Amino acid sequence: MNTAPVKSFDDSTNVRVAEANNPSSSVVHFPDSEPLRLACDQLLAPISIAYQTYGELNADKSNAILICHTLTGDQYVASVHPMTKKPGWWETLVGPGKPIDTDRFFVICPNILGSCMGSTGPASIDPKTGRPYALNFPVVTIGDMVNAQVRLIDHLGIDQLFCILGGSMGGMQVLEWASSHTERAYSAVPIATAAWHSPQNIAFHEVGRQAVMADPDWCAGDYHLHQKVPRNGLAVARMAAHITYLSEEALHHRFGRSLQRGSELTFSFNADFQVESYLRHQGSTFVDRFDANSYLYITRAMDYFDLEAEHGDVLANAFRGTKTRFLVVSFTSDWLYPTRESREIVRALNAVAANVSFVEIETDSGHDSFLLDEPEFFATVRGFLNAAGVKRGLST
Amino acid sequence: MNTAPVKSFDDSTNVRVAEANNPSSSVVHFPDSEPLRLACDQLLAPISIAYQTYGELNADKSNAILICHTLTGDQYVASVHPMTKKPGWWETLVGPGKPIDTDRFFVICPNILGSCMGSTGPASIDPKTGRPYALNFPVVTIGDMVNAQVRLIDHLGIDQLFCILGGSMGGMQVLEWASSHTERAYSAVPIATAAWHSPQNIAFHEVGRQAVMADPDWCAGDYHLHQKVPRNGLAVARMAAHITYLSEEALHHRFGRSLQRGSELTFSFNADFQVESYLRHQGSTFVDRFDANSYLYITRAMDYFDLEAEHGDVLANAFRGTKTRFLVVSFTSDWLYPTRESREIVRALNAVAANVSFVEIETDSGHDSFLLDEPEFFATVRGFLNAAGVKRGLST
Repeated sequence: MNTAPVKSFDDSTNVRVAEANNPSSSVVHFPDSEPLRLACDQLLAPISIAYQTYGELNADKSNAILICHTLTGDQYVASVHPMTKKPGWWETLVGPGKPIDTDRFFVICPNILGSCMGSTGPASIDPKTGRPYALNFPVVTIGDMVNAQVRLIDHLGIDQLFCILGGSMGGMQVLEWASSHTERAYSAVPIATAAWHSPQNIAFHEVGRQAVMADPDWCAGDYHLHQKVPRNGLAVARMAAHITYLSEEALHHRFGRSLQRGSELTFSFNADFQVESYLRHQGSTFVDRFDANSYLYITRAMDYFDLEAEHGDVLANAFRGTKTRFLVVSFTSDWLYPTRESREIVRALNAVAANVSFVEIETDSGHDSFLLDEPEFFATVRGFLNAAGVKRGLST
Repeated sequence: MNTAPVKSFDDSTNVRVAEANNPSSSVVHFPDSEPLRLACDQLLAPISIAYQTYGELNADKSNAILICHTLTGDQYVASVHPMTKKPGWWETLVGPGKPIDTDRFFVICPNILGSCMGSTGPASIDPKTGRPYALNFPVVTIGDMVNAQVRLIDHLGIDQLFCILGGSMGGMQVLEWASSHTERAYSAVPIATAAWHSPQNIAFHEVGRQAVMADPDWCAGDYHLHQKVPRNGLAVARMAAHITYLSEEALHHRFGRSLQRGSELTFSFNADFQVESYLRHQGSTFVDRFDANSYLYITRAMDYFDLEAEHGDVLANAFRGTKTRFLVVSFTSDWLYPTRESREIVRALNAVAANVSFVEIETDSGHDSFLLDEPEFFATVRGFLNAAGVKRGLST
């Protein structure tokens, strides 16, 4: 594969392009002879799924937990990110002695199909052309991502996952698993998510996509070929999205109307307010680690997600006959996936007499709460996994 | 003044540039000898204030209502917009027999300082250079806008306005008038507004500004000189802002997850969902009628607005001694200026024993409710003006 550094890219871009094709993590390759049939009816092959594992799989392979990551997440859930060198994105929850205790459980976290950290996506080199797929990559769905994960779990020889767990878009994957592959999930924990993407969320995604595509350096998706990066467009997209991850209360407490430089307005378009400086930082650091086309494809997959429509407009039909044990979690100040959308999931599960717990965590930290230090959330997950573990006959 | 059409602009751009300098409405010019001292301590001169009036001023000049427009509004409150040819933006509320009855009241609506419909702003030709001010225009504040309006009201020979009324940023101007020029306001109606701009709202504005400034056609503000228009950036800014003007419920009712073309997903980045198509339309039509630099300056003025900080962090001090009669209006589903921010205004007015009514209108139409068909809102305004008119001794 041709992954030689592209000349005029800066170092972070070269590292990013390399990670998309030769990830630092484990990776499993499925050859041309094992194509994946996508929702759009195309066949995709070959396919790579990059993943990280933590802990040890027990003898009867009954202690595996699959963690599904978010829109801009990755497989480095509890280990250092190879580009940013920052700790894993969910080390609050996952690790030795943590609520998802890697001394006890075997944790698997795959990079999703369409992403850019080693699983096949638009930044991957298409072996048929020797160039990145870019917009020749097919539009994939949450269902496609999950079907690719099924391949990985088969490859690892695991019949049934003890738990499938994820927040935000990770929660969509959890719901898709629990609907389409319920026999593979002993338990499932969808967090801060919804069974279908709301029009407001589609609208925010569309703003982000238009920002990326408006950037001349996007080059109709072929920015790698032109040795460019649509930095400005992707940064604006990230800034808009980032606002939706926080609550108004969180912004008040964290920044309020505090100024950057003492207490003087500059009467300019500089970042006078701390919240402006913070957002600009979020935008620019994101561009260093994430692929712009992946951002387009993954937001699209989220927009398309509608478990209700796929089941005759009756969400309960998605879960009929399920034996999976569910824990549904929402956060009071999450306005991206508000509690009422979790309640819809719970109502559907109740309608098919599923085993379901529901917890709404009181917090003012917004959608991102599930990634933050939320003791009640940690205790809830720990308690659920312990109880389910006892039922499953796992040693404590 | 050099307002000759610029060659490579399209027609809508030429019309827009012309309206900024030679508006279709009335306009008053204040010469170099009458500069305006701005909050940034610069002197601005000359100044033009474009305005429309409706109805007749009565003999004792006691029936004048000043309407303050929104961020992207203009003076064409109840008459056809010279560029879009659409009806006035508040004809639901203003006109013969309407709640603001132009058979009874003399309505004045000025274009704000910094805007682009004939009042001095960044699209105006700087007579000292013969070129548009662009980023040489000083950063103005809501207070500066109001001080320019005071000049207009002086010019019209009106000592006291019967009422000053406006929604959103118009409401900020109403509060500024009522604070700095309370003796000029017999009554004041701030609608769907706040005494200070929240960090979340600053954040959304910053996203919009970054989108404009990221567009290479912005040319560091000098797009007119380069015969360009930062269409893509300004459209993205408008799209992001537009989401905040609606409520999630309104998006649900109006669009839901309805698709553009029958019921088939296209598995592409086309506007599959109606809400995407709607937003794109909002973005592109906005660019035809509004100046990108004005968008930067006016959002900045809103960010800077903080009546509480300007009065020793005690909002009540802004209104101490006021004799103005207030009606404060909010809308239940407005998340841009939620009801709690109106309540802060009401509490401050109560703390100085001001005459204040407060009405929260139940609606699911979001921030834009004040521009829509809201019978309870209309009845509230009509009732308040009638009662205040009786007190003021106006004939009915």
